[in-house]
Amino acid sequence: MGPSFKFDQMYFEDVVVGEHFIMGEHRLTKEEIIDFALAWDPMPFHIDEDLAKASHFGGLIAAGSHLLSLRMKICHSNGVSPNVIASAGYDEVRFNAPAYAGDLLTLHVEVLEKRESKSKPDRGYFKLDYRMLNEAGETTLSHTDTIFIRKRG
Amino acid sequence: MGPSFKFDQMYFEDVVVGEHFIMGEHRLTKEEIIDFALAWDPMPFHIDEDLAKASHFGGLIAAGSHLLSLRMKICHSNGVSPNVIASAGYDEVRFNAPAYAGDLLTLHVEVLEKRESKSKPDRGYFKLDYRMLNEAGETTLSHTDTIFIRKRG
Repeated sequence: MGPSFKFDQMYFEDVVVGEHFIMGEHRLTKEEIIDFALAWDPMPFHIDEDLAKASHFGGLIAAGSHLLSLRMKICHSNGVSPNVIASAGYDEVRFNAPAYAGDLLTLHVEVLEKRESKSKPDRGYFKLDYRMLNEAGETTLSHTDTIFIRKRG
Repeated sequence: MGPSFKFDQMYFEDVVVGEHFIMGEHRLTKEEIIDFALAWDPMPFHIDEDLAKASHFGGLIAAGSHLLSLRMKICHSNGVSPNVIASAGYDEVRFNAPAYAGDLLTLHVEVLEKRESKSKPDRGYFKLDYRMLNEAGETTLSHTDTIFIRKRG
């Protein structure tokens, strides 16, 4: 599918199980990590560079909810889809390796499955596996997402 | 355990399986929903009141990553814990009912299990079930969280 994959033009019929592609990338900054954490998750290792260096992480790391929000932002960088109805939910959300200030994060996606809705003929759902990798190839965040989307018809 | 439960004074030994309590509450505002979504998840029903009213949701609703961030913020409203090491991850994240502008959301928590670490004697983990309810008693967000925490010794 590759980088030409566009969420904003996609319907249920366009989802192909087994395909994998890169949704986009984002370089984390110290300022972004601190700003997000001050608002939502003010743990010392998210908001204070000195305390973070002295912590078990050894440096400033992004909050988990920051990485989940960033995952969504990167998806939208390919265009906001008018056909996505909602997310049913995420499974197996894992904060595998810390994401540090300065890290370049790349979002990898694989289509795990798709099914037509039994109760509503105008839609179906598909399940994606998301993995956010740093430059060393380590996974920082991973989870699946089950998304309801309209059919073209 | 009740509202006197304090994350900021808690060690592994203080976690009691089966206890449930209310962590806090938060009233969602239109401005907060739009500000969060413009930064992280700019779907029409998160950022535009008129388009949201015309959508299948019938009104402005909070982004899923907003609710996950808010869940964390409410936890910290009882004090940021110096003994929490990290979250291993979330399971069964469900966006059950939409959370609308004006909703008063209350965060309910239940302790599902706790275990000592086999490899590291200074810590253990516990698994929590979070449910964020609106005033009608509907669950808007639910998920479990597995948290590593230090022992007192």
